[in-house]
Amino acid sequence: MKLQALAELLGGELRGNGNTEIWGVSGASDAKEGDITFLAGMKWLKEVKGSSASAVLVKEFVDEIAKPQLKTGNPQYAFAKLLSHFYVRPHPCKGISSRAFISEKASIGQDVTIYDFAYIADGVRIGAKSVVYPGVFIGEDSTVGEGCTIHPNTTIRERVTIGSNVVIHSGAVIGADGFGYVFEGGVHHKIPQVGTVVIEDDVEIGAGVTIDRATTGTTRIGRGTKIDNLVQVGHNVQVGRNVILVAQIGIGGSSHIGDHTIIGGQAGIADHTTIAPGTMIGAQSGVLGEVQRGIYSGSPIMPHRDWLKASAVFARLPELKKKIEELEKSIRTIQSPEEQ
Amino acid sequence: MKLQALAELLGGELRGNGNTEIWGVSGASDAKEGDITFLAGMKWLKEVKGSSASAVLVKEFVDEIAKPQLKTGNPQYAFAKLLSHFYVRPHPCKGISSRAFISEKASIGQDVTIYDFAYIADGVRIGAKSVVYPGVFIGEDSTVGEGCTIHPNTTIRERVTIGSNVVIHSGAVIGADGFGYVFEGGVHHKIPQVGTVVIEDDVEIGAGVTIDRATTGTTRIGRGTKIDNLVQVGHNVQVGRNVILVAQIGIGGSSHIGDHTIIGGQAGIADHTTIAPGTMIGAQSGVLGEVQRGIYSGSPIMPHRDWLKASAVFARLPELKKKIEELEKSIRTIQSPEEQ
Amino acid sequence: MKLQALAELLGGELRGNGNTEIWGVSGASDAKEGDITFLAGMKWLKEVKGSSASAVLVKEFVDEIAKPQLKTGNPQYAFAKLLSHFYVRPHPCKGISSRAFISEKASIGQDVTIYDFAYIADGVRIGAKSVVYPGVFIGEDSTVGEGCTIHPNTTIRERVTIGSNVVIHSGAVIGADGFGYVFEGGVHHKIPQVGTVVIEDDVEIGAGVTIDRATTGTTRIGRGTKIDNLVQVGHNVQVGRNVILVAQIGIGGSSHIGDHTIIGGQAGIADHTTIAPGTMIGAQSGVLGEVQRGIYSGSPIMPHRDWLKASAVFARLPELKKKIEELEKSIRTIQSPEEQ
Repeated sequence: MKLQALAELLGGELRGNGNTEIWGVSGASDAKEGDITFLAGMKWLKEVKGSSASAVLVKEFVDEIAKPQLKTGNPQYAFAKLLSHFYVRPHPCKGISSRAFISEKASIGQDVTIYDFAYIADGVRIGAKSVVYPGVFIGEDSTVGEGCTIHPNTTIRERVTIGSNVVIHSGAVIGADGFGYVFEGGVHHKIPQVGTVVIEDDVEIGAGVTIDRATTGTTRIGRGTKIDNLVQVGHNVQVGRNVILVAQIGIGGSSHIGDHTIIGGQAGIADHTTIAPGTMIGAQSGVLGEVQRGIYSGSPIMPHRDWLKASAVFARLPELKKKIEELEKSIRTIQSPEEQ
Repeated sequence: MKLQALAELLGGELRGNGNTEIWGVSGASDAKEGDITFLAGMKWLKEVKGSSASAVLVKEFVDEIAKPQLKTGNPQYAFAKLLSHFYVRPHPCKGISSRAFISEKASIGQDVTIYDFAYIADGVRIGAKSVVYPGVFIGEDSTVGEGCTIHPNTTIRERVTIGSNVVIHSGAVIGADGFGYVFEGGVHHKIPQVGTVVIEDDVEIGAGVTIDRATTGTTRIGRGTKIDNLVQVGHNVQVGRNVILVAQIGIGGSSHIGDHTIIGGQAGIADHTTIAPGTMIGAQSGVLGEVQRGIYSGSPIMPHRDWLKASAVFARLPELKKKIEELEKSIRTIQSPEEQ
Repeated sequence: MKLQALAELLGGELRGNGNTEIWGVSGASDAKEGDITFLAGMKWLKEVKGSSASAVLVKEFVDEIAKPQLKTGNPQYAFAKLLSHFYVRPHPCKGISSRAFISEKASIGQDVTIYDFAYIADGVRIGAKSVVYPGVFIGEDSTVGEGCTIHPNTTIRERVTIGSNVVIHSGAVIGADGFGYVFEGGVHHKIPQVGTVVIEDDVEIGAGVTIDRATTGTTRIGRGTKIDNLVQVGHNVQVGRNVILVAQIGIGGSSHIGDHTIIGGQAGIADHTTIAPGTMIGAQSGVLGEVQRGIYSGSPIMPHRDWLKASAVFARLPELKKKIEELEKSIRTIQSPEEQ
């Protein structure tokens, strides 16, 4: 495909040879001749200049780059669109394998693919064009919307509702019992977890993620939210729309995460926490209580800038302690010079 | 069901209209008319008063609540019992699917249910009334007791012993090799992991939990212990009875966790750690060595109160550093006024 | 087997009765009469002396141990070899189950075992003597080398390359989509993840581990590297050779981990981090930027010794704050005695 044609496809502006042949799309470090790559920011300029790519997607033309450039408002978005254009093909409908188990009481939409060894229980409904890979379990009366991809070995328990265009990666478990016990007579008694889980449209759920069903009521993941691998979402949690949860986060029961919040990897959110929309939480943070909109880090969290400054001082604590001891000594000398 | 009947069922004391019809049981935030809810403590009073519930389980009658009240010694326990009463039905025996693999050398008890695509290896024994869901693997010579529920896509490796009334959630892996290598000749050589795992009665194991088999000997989870999702238990670990392990905890090899210990989410326990019975460890803590009974937080841990105080000062470290510098300057001025 | 024979097998030197009968191999805490155990270091002397073992593998003869001793250069390595010798038998070839799905376009080597309910897609190649357990999914055009063990319920997505003598434990997910989105028009758009994963020879991957495919290019795990349970490896990460990654580590996208690095449990590595070969990172650390060879702890990391010292002071922060306040008061008194 010629670069000129890509410019037309993306509605971008071209600088350099429009006849450059583009065979592929690649990140700068992986690019080879014939690839188009992108410049995400000036900190990547050296890597992009040094790459073998034949053209670059940019936000503004950059004189230091000798390669042909294609200017678009959001070069990373253009990159994503080109990856789709070059490499992504819709999963062809392969029908329903006779080696899957499909309850007679399940309702399967048009052009659904269900592979071998998938188990579809009574009362399940699966929307058109969804793909269910081998080893997937979908429990009684659960619903999967249209255009979903449920990757191998995923478990969706009973009475769970999955919206449309949802992707669930392998090993994820949606709707396991929440972790609720009451201590009486020296032992922990299980509180039955009879609620459910709702995953709204356009959500993506990473490999090995666990999202527990509510004790009563609903655990909810809002539309457009993206969850990385090995994240734990406790019972009755409400995650808003377009939230980003990076890998290995844990969210305790009944917490509310506002829309458009971004939480870094391995952060922990205590139960009954409320986080305002648009908040950013740093990796490995510990969060509890009511959190106003802002940028935070640390465990417990504090404003991110304060955390950066405090962390810088932390390493110098032994030195500070020594200074304090010297100050005390100096003061004693000043106060009682004869005793020294 | 009338509230009066519930009072008799629970052996509780009633205040208000015993003829109130109760159709369901629900947490305060999810409750609708006809539901009974519970008051776990006065901090939830506002939520309970504002809920649509038609009755409330309480520890002591609360004048501020206008709804009918049912007084029991442990309202949360009563709530759990009512949830069971209203919603939980025993899994009916569905027999053994011809599309499961059951070794001829396996021994399957009475009224066991085994679903499609489960794999039961040679020498496995499964006790009466247990339920094995699709995609479960049980390896050679492993034992599952009576009344167990093994959720879909769980893996139980060879020679593992599971007691009775154990629940294992989806994606859990019991008996994978412990992480043991010895470095020799520039590479890491595997130390064969030939021990096993014992899960005692009444244990519940969360989704995606990994419990490794011992190098030699046994990794053990004591009776009545409850383990939340995505917890890692290393080889040769001994977890006591009625322990609570919240999500995403990691426990290093050969550690001992005493009975009735409670450990918060994302805490890390180093290998060869010993924790005394009845200890409480805060979320995200880091624990090593010998830990006496107490309440701890931090990484490394310290008494919880000290950690609260130290954490409060942490955010003020830049300010303290500045004060120290000012003190140093003042001292210099006092000591050598002419030089300033 | 007589101890004398073991000495000859290992090429070790014997002290004590060579006719001692050895029936088994065991860690000191699990050892019973007839077992041989090992002394990993003098801190274990008491445990070894008190054990019921009938003989001990040592690095140097230890007078305090009355039991027969077998001296070898690396007693833990000798222990590993004896465990293999006594307990480990190669998995017999059981052929290919008719209840697995094997694409006609897959290529299966000699003496491969494939169990029921495994799914082998088009274009997959599996090398000689590999074992694929129930519930394993191997996607289109992926390759598994010779002598591999793929434990139950593992997912290997499409176009992934696994070397030889690789062990993958249950629930692991190799090649799920990396976590990449671009924000445009108020929503997160998926960046297609069209790269792949390469796992080199002699790697072991723990239960529940997730290793994401690259956006473009390759996520790579170097030869001989060992990964513990529930570790997350992001897209385009390059892990070197003979690296040790302890449980629950998270590694952000595009990071490079040098050869022979050892990283403790629950550590977090930010995206685009570079860690020099031979580095050691403590448990629960937080790592970002360029890390020179060394030993580090803390979040953010600092030299391990500094972290130990700073952590020791941390608990005393309230006391230091009080001292500073007293110093300020003293200074004020000295500066303006009349005002006090």
